[in-house]
Amino acid sequence: MGHVIITDPPRASLEDVDRLQRFGVATIHEAIGRVGLLDPRLRPIQTGVRVAGTAVTAECWPGDNLMIHAAVEQCRPGDLLVVTTTSESTDGFFGELLATSLQSRGVRGLVTTTGVRDTEELRSMSFPVWSAAVCAQGTVKATAGSVNIPVAIGRTVVRPGDVVVADDDGIVLIPRHDAAAAIETAIAREANEEQTRAALAAGELGLDRYGLRSLLAELGVEYRKASRDE
Amino acid sequence: MGHVIITDPPRASLEDVDRLQRFGVATIHEAIGRVGLLDPRLRPIQTGVRVAGTAVTAECWPGDNLMIHAAVEQCRPGDLLVVTTTSESTDGFFGELLATSLQSRGVRGLVTTTGVRDTEELRSMSFPVWSAAVCAQGTVKATAGSVNIPVAIGRTVVRPGDVVVADDDGIVLIPRHDAAAAIETAIAREANEEQTRAALAAGELGLDRYGLRSLLAELGVEYRKASRDE
Amino acid sequence: MGHVIITDPPRASLEDVDRLQRFGVATIHEAIGRVGLLDPRLRPIQTGVRVAGTAVTAECWPGDNLMIHAAVEQCRPGDLLVVTTTSESTDGFFGELLATSLQSRGVRGLVTTTGVRDTEELRSMSFPVWSAAVCAQGTVKATAGSVNIPVAIGRTVVRPGDVVVADDDGIVLIPRHDAAAAIETAIAREANEEQTRAALAAGELGLDRYGLRSLLAELGVEYRKASRDE
Amino acid sequence: MGHVIITDPPRASLEDVDRLQRFGVATIHEAIGRVGLLDPRLRPIQTGVRVAGTAVTAECWPGDNLMIHAAVEQCRPGDLLVVTTTSESTDGFFGELLATSLQSRGVRGLVTTTGVRDTEELRSMSFPVWSAAVCAQGTVKATAGSVNIPVAIGRTVVRPGDVVVADDDGIVLIPRHDAAAAIETAIAREANEEQTRAALAAGELGLDRYGLRSLLAELGVEYRKASRDE
Amino acid sequence: MGHVIITDPPRASLEDVDRLQRFGVATIHEAIGRVGLLDPRLRPIQTGVRVAGTAVTAECWPGDNLMIHAAVEQCRPGDLLVVTTTSESTDGFFGELLATSLQSRGVRGLVTTTGVRDTEELRSMSFPVWSAAVCAQGTVKATAGSVNIPVAIGRTVVRPGDVVVADDDGIVLIPRHDAAAAIETAIAREANEEQTRAALAAGELGLDRYGLRSLLAELGVEYRKASRDE
Amino acid sequence: MGHVIITDPPRASLEDVDRLQRFGVATIHEAIGRVGLLDPRLRPIQTGVRVAGTAVTAECWPGDNLMIHAAVEQCRPGDLLVVTTTSESTDGFFGELLATSLQSRGVRGLVTTTGVRDTEELRSMSFPVWSAAVCAQGTVKATAGSVNIPVAIGRTVVRPGDVVVADDDGIVLIPRHDAAAAIETAIAREANEEQTRAALAAGELGLDRYGLRSLLAELGVEYRKASRDE
Repeated sequence: MGHVIITDPPRASLEDVDRLQRFGVATIHEAIGRVGLLDPRLRPIQTGVRVAGTAVTAECWPGDNLMIHAAVEQCRPGDLLVVTTTSESTDGFFGELLATSLQSRGVRGLVTTTGVRDTEELRSMSFPVWSAAVCAQGTVKATAGSVNIPVAIGRTVVRPGDVVVADDDGIVLIPRHDAAAAIETAIAREANEEQTRAALAAGELGLDRYGLRSLLAELGVEYRKASRDE
Repeated sequence: MGHVIITDPPRASLEDVDRLQRFGVATIHEAIGRVGLLDPRLRPIQTGVRVAGTAVTAECWPGDNLMIHAAVEQCRPGDLLVVTTTSESTDGFFGELLATSLQSRGVRGLVTTTGVRDTEELRSMSFPVWSAAVCAQGTVKATAGSVNIPVAIGRTVVRPGDVVVADDDGIVLIPRHDAAAAIETAIAREANEEQTRAALAAGELGLDRYGLRSLLAELGVEYRKASRDE
Repeated sequence: MGHVIITDPPRASLEDVDRLQRFGVATIHEAIGRVGLLDPRLRPIQTGVRVAGTAVTAECWPGDNLMIHAAVEQCRPGDLLVVTTTSESTDGFFGELLATSLQSRGVRGLVTTTGVRDTEELRSMSFPVWSAAVCAQGTVKATAGSVNIPVAIGRTVVRPGDVVVADDDGIVLIPRHDAAAAIETAIAREANEEQTRAALAAGELGLDRYGLRSLLAELGVEYRKASRDE
Repeated sequence: MGHVIITDPPRASLEDVDRLQRFGVATIHEAIGRVGLLDPRLRPIQTGVRVAGTAVTAECWPGDNLMIHAAVEQCRPGDLLVVTTTSESTDGFFGELLATSLQSRGVRGLVTTTGVRDTEELRSMSFPVWSAAVCAQGTVKATAGSVNIPVAIGRTVVRPGDVVVADDDGIVLIPRHDAAAAIETAIAREANEEQTRAALAAGELGLDRYGLRSLLAELGVEYRKASRDE
Repeated sequence: MGHVIITDPPRASLEDVDRLQRFGVATIHEAIGRVGLLDPRLRPIQTGVRVAGTAVTAECWPGDNLMIHAAVEQCRPGDLLVVTTTSESTDGFFGELLATSLQSRGVRGLVTTTGVRDTEELRSMSFPVWSAAVCAQGTVKATAGSVNIPVAIGRTVVRPGDVVVADDDGIVLIPRHDAAAAIETAIAREANEEQTRAALAAGELGLDRYGLRSLLAELGVEYRKASRDE
Repeated sequence: MGHVIITDPPRASLEDVDRLQRFGVATIHEAIGRVGLLDPRLRPIQTGVRVAGTAVTAECWPGDNLMIHAAVEQCRPGDLLVVTTTSESTDGFFGELLATSLQSRGVRGLVTTTGVRDTEELRSMSFPVWSAAVCAQGTVKATAGSVNIPVAIGRTVVRPGDVVVADDDGIVLIPRHDAAAAIETAIAREANEEQTRAALAAGELGLDRYGLRSLLAELGVEYRKASRDE
């Protein structure tokens, strides 16, 4: 039960990661069975950016970013760092200097349940970040934690080497072994959505396209003309 | 007490709606007696956009957007869709496909107490949205609800056909029968604000302009010179 | 214990204020010993703006902005208005008209634990604001409060005449008498960060630069190779 | 749109109120079609108490309990006072003195979206209260509001004269004209629950009693034996 | 700006403390001018207990209770320990063992912005606690902080030696030098309340007793008879 | 990735469960290495009750308790039902009837991230419950979910058959295979705490017992005598 730094975890292939990056978070979430979302309270500090990477995880003590420093060394090109704490902490665990370090190692971005700072600089550097807060509060480096252990964020468990895709809608986790299957279902879903989009743009109703009229009737929903004299 | 879809409710005239759109939400709120604001936790996903429309309402079950599909059919050009749930739910009830459908019907925007997704696409489409959250979580279509019934959002009741105006400051509701009066008072208020703005820019103080000095005295507020030796 | 308006409090020199404005909030916070941050829930309504000023404080009753009007008169060029309420209130205490008044007096910005409105106009005017909320709800002018008394915001006490620096990361308070010392330590810290940035960009690890490897060992953190057969 | 005190609103009969008091809040909510709940964040300050009364409503300004004083005069035996504010405020709007006044008029309890204080005394007096908070913060009496207008609390609108039932589970609103019907459906529901309770206690499963096995199959839920070797 | 443990701060006299303990928190808050309340989110873990003591303060790092141990040594009979953290942390900073230690030194209770644990044991020991949360999460002892420095909790600053009174309604701070005056005004207020209570119990209305009828009229609040035909 | 009901998962032995029930949640959390706590926002609806059981898990759709009914059938004597939803939902998923059913099967309690209702009845039945909310809002039975899959609650993953211990301080999870070891370390910890308690009660300080004086010095914490003239 002690604290560990797991080195060199198996990772999804970057080829798969890059294919997944083509899809939006909502599309992937639907494609893999409406699962995989991280806590929706994690929000991007930038707009209009989508990124995908293989997860390196760090579990820190509240107010203490020691294990992020340990995690940096475990990162490779194509990774995306995922940080959490053993209990809630929205201090500024991460800023420009750590981003410089990660960027020099080819890391694609950060997802953290903590706060971050130097946000203007992070945007200038084009280092994408999803966090629970923006907060200038500094941290110490004093307490043990772990790197590359599975971490639960919201209702989803992130394992090192899994694929993380993040955009303006949030963050989705695709387990390493499911990446290839996810790409296929996402392609299919996107094609299907393309058709639906065209149909809806042309005026077809969702009620008809999805066959919902009979369901409304079954559920006892009644149509009634509004009274005029109100 | 069952579930209903009310068709063809009387609506405020689009002429009035378009006139109201010229005013900011804060101005209208003040003009109609400091009432009408929807829950201030509903925030825009875009910046710098103001929109006005006639309300079509949908009341959904948490995690279930069936009734939005039913509501789409009830929408006409100039409408603005207002969605709520029977209990709090910040899932992604609404995205690009529903926006495509609404846009093809001339609907001007969405106000929802739920979450939305495909936010980058919604901004690209110029379909304005105010929501309680951004969340990629998908919904089902399984449970009954109602369309075009009155719904309470925050401390304000939205009735179908009422005017909804939304901008960066929030959302205000003008009851259908009060639209004309609201326009008049908003015009008067704006003219008055214009004068006040000029006076304040010229250095007049609010204390003098609003006659507040005597009130401060009455309330026993004392002026005291700061000590120097602190 | 009554309500007072303190006039002409001693202020930090604008020379010092302007020097402090060169540094980010996070840098100053670190430089002065990881203290001084105001409640991180106060967020900017604009992006990419940094401002520094001498604090004028106003303590209002919830839903009542009377004392802001009294505070305006106490403001001078270089000041930054800091508003709070005796209990939580996120109504729209402040908008374009008050900003016009403050701007005409040379005030540099607003920090408030309340809500604000007319946000689009405030951005257009380039009047920077940090607030707890955006809310169109109007306020009254009926209840006494105080101006230029010390106010606690989050875990920090703001005294009139102190220096307030605010940017995208939040807001930091530098006590008046500490301004000069803060500038020196901030300069030193920035120089040091410059070197660290270069080293990290060149691939040096924080683990080595900050000497953390021995600490990890002391804390019993173990390195373990990931198993391959998972 | 000005502020009004509506006197002598029609009320549900106390006979109906007393019959409704026999049922729990959850039972009535179900009986009337899963509607009518007030904001679930309103919680009792006591345990194990159920009360029913006819609503007298007061809408106050934040931090200002003036309109509660005006509402007291409108109360009669059998009433239950329902207080809200135009924007969120959790100050201590209500305490022992107001409870003394209400109790002397035969009022049965208080439901408020604000905070309350003197909670130990209120429990000693057996004056039941449901509130959003407990808070000692005092209020002023300076700003206009209304009495006996409809107020929205959560997703439900309370009209004066409607029946309010409150217990440990929360608060439910039964519109005045629906009281008689609600009693009948509540009686039927309770009888039905009695039978269900006996069946479940005897070991019958909800899956069988509610016929859910086929639904699970339709929805594609599969049964799988757990693996032993995990 | 370093971390300090201030020893032997001047304290309010225990005689004054004991006199203040006779009054409720709401009464004292009103008596001293509607100020002094600590953050209302701090709630008691027990019911029906009131306590007063002289403040010993501890400022800790999130997730780290080292400075509570340092604070224990600074406590004397009649003290009440007040704990906060440099940023929000609801971990279980305090439990039965620390309470044993404090009780053996004559300390009367704990007020903390953190979480606490062993709550059942604390109640059994009759050691009263007000906290922001109950949470079993353990803490470390690794990071510096301070003892007996002024700390801001909510909008109130607690200085060592000040009087803290806490009961079911919350917590109020009486500055050391104001204790004697607070007792006098509290006595006067209580006497006055006694008379008001009797008058209200006898049926006098607050509207009359506080002379509010003319205020309502001035504010333009109109009385209107409810329509019968609704 | 479909929905499944896993039957007959391996469970920790009831002998171990019953031994673990002797320890408080905080003690077990510390004994197993400061891990295992479920989301601290889940709070008991009763006071002074501790319970331990083997987890049966149910994952529901928001507003829909269908899968609880499916889970009941999977429960055996000694189990404790753990319920969560795919996205946040505080509706009343559980009440007296489901408790009757569970009690008839020997289930020891419920832990749920949702709301519950019939709380007074649940307390009367002595069926212990930990939940995120109390809410009378009813649910439907329409949408698929799973039973006995691993679920993440806060930062901890609950697997069916694991041991769950809950008391006033919260809820802790002991993985099935770690139960025996946890008992041993808990016994050791309790013995140690017993000695510490005696020492602290006798006046020994934590500073001395835990050897913290040198740490304070190392960290640069200075002792300073308070000034008298303040």
